[in-house]
Amino acid sequence: MPEEGFSTAGIIGVGLIGGSLALALKRKNSNCKILGFGRNERRLKEAKELGIIDEYSTLLKEVAKADLIVFATPLGLFEEIARELVHHIEEEATVIDVGSVKGSVVKVMEEIFDRRAHFVGTHPIAGSEKTGFENAKADLFENAKVIITPTEKTNREALKRVISLWQTVGALVEIMTPEEHDRVYALVSHLPHLVAFSLVNTVAEVDRRLIKYAGSGFRDTTRIGKSSPEIWSDIFSMNKKAIIEQLEVFSKQISLIRHYLESGELTKIYDFIKSSKELREKID
Amino acid sequence: MPEEGFSTAGIIGVGLIGGSLALALKRKNSNCKILGFGRNERRLKEAKELGIIDEYSTLLKEVAKADLIVFATPLGLFEEIARELVHHIEEEATVIDVGSVKGSVVKVMEEIFDRRAHFVGTHPIAGSEKTGFENAKADLFENAKVIITPTEKTNREALKRVISLWQTVGALVEIMTPEEHDRVYALVSHLPHLVAFSLVNTVAEVDRRLIKYAGSGFRDTTRIGKSSPEIWSDIFSMNKKAIIEQLEVFSKQISLIRHYLESGELTKIYDFIKSSKELREKID
Repeated sequence: MPEEGFSTAGIIGVGLIGGSLALALKRKNSNCKILGFGRNERRLKEAKELGIIDEYSTLLKEVAKADLIVFATPLGLFEEIARELVHHIEEEATVIDVGSVKGSVVKVMEEIFDRRAHFVGTHPIAGSEKTGFENAKADLFENAKVIITPTEKTNREALKRVISLWQTVGALVEIMTPEEHDRVYALVSHLPHLVAFSLVNTVAEVDRRLIKYAGSGFRDTTRIGKSSPEIWSDIFSMNKKAIIEQLEVFSKQISLIRHYLESGELTKIYDFIKSSKELREKID
Repeated sequence: MPEEGFSTAGIIGVGLIGGSLALALKRKNSNCKILGFGRNERRLKEAKELGIIDEYSTLLKEVAKADLIVFATPLGLFEEIARELVHHIEEEATVIDVGSVKGSVVKVMEEIFDRRAHFVGTHPIAGSEKTGFENAKADLFENAKVIITPTEKTNREALKRVISLWQTVGALVEIMTPEEHDRVYALVSHLPHLVAFSLVNTVAEVDRRLIKYAGSGFRDTTRIGKSSPEIWSDIFSMNKKAIIEQLEVFSKQISLIRHYLESGELTKIYDFIKSSKELREKID
């Protein structure tokens, strides 16, 4: 039983990530019972019929029986759910989230669960513009980075169990502080999303019919421009400080290349592109 | 013989596009002889050994024997090559280019070839961050858009032959004015490239080591950030006016979302993302 004692996992929000973790847990440990929680009973029923969850409920107290609780809804719902859940949760239960922002989230969750349960913040780098359990895959986390963000309040035994949980499903665990996480992912994830949304909206602003002329470059660059408004409006508003910081750096780069264009500095334009090419090729 | 009389094609610049057109022409019409021109004899020899071209030369006058001449080098080399080529070119030869900018290019090429040969500007939407004939494919243009940009000076018979040429290799031809082309592609191609280069350089500016944390979103958004500095510095400098115009619209979109973040307008952030999602999904 590689999950070291998790006999029941309560998945709050059975979507792409929650559903994939359910499938991955089940595959690695068929004894682990998966409880799904959501607002939409019809959707939960479908997830059960697909074999993603074993049981489901729209009542938090039913899911609260689990010894592992996973928050996998959009970030904006965490606090309200946590404040209700804490009244029902098993003592010593382990609670994780899979949200894309950690600083403010970890702070609030640690306060709410305090000594009633052990909260550990985690962020699997396995999201997509796709959503819903229909896109869930048991191997979604194989070789994916998962950032775990303990604080001085984190219970060390719970932290070990959570690291082991993610490693069990194939992930490559990295430890960061919540603040470091938010700075890094503002840069390599939240800013690119903001830019992709802005690129598509630029076409909308100029003439939306022109989108049909887009080639593969535009398609790839704006694939994440199809991401969920629910998920991403929460990420943006909960990490706005770090995002704005990185946006300032991006805006300076834009001003720089614009200046090179206006002044006709071909060598500078060349070097700007070469710098991008060289760094980007490092992650091929 | 679907190329309606092209018995010999002279490919100036045997790279991804030039090489793919060579392969596609050969496949559709095995009697069409392909001559490759370039500066690097070793590379031309390799292209011949791979069966991409039939013969090669580093002398323009050798390639000038062809009844179809294709300019497929970086844009910045066109003028110099054209000025030499025109002295050797066959009368009534058809000359096309495959460059990503049309306005200034078509103007210069029409002036140079004038009544010596028939120039028609074309732009196959089939580029990639990959370069070189090693990546050439005979089916690269199958169902790809090719924009053809005649002017009032364009010879109508040559235009028909060029439309037919591209249709023969599977392309979907669209006609635009050179200026309309440059405005559209500044929006859906040149701006996204500029943005991708700027995103990668933002990481370089903040801390280049952080690129290792990038997930699939960053990778897709910046795939074109690996594009060739030779090709793209020429595109940027030759279409700078249209690019700066579209960049202004983009910068306004960036200011807008930044404002929504700063003022905490969650509904506006949501709507901004939703607008992007809805338009982007139209080209799936």
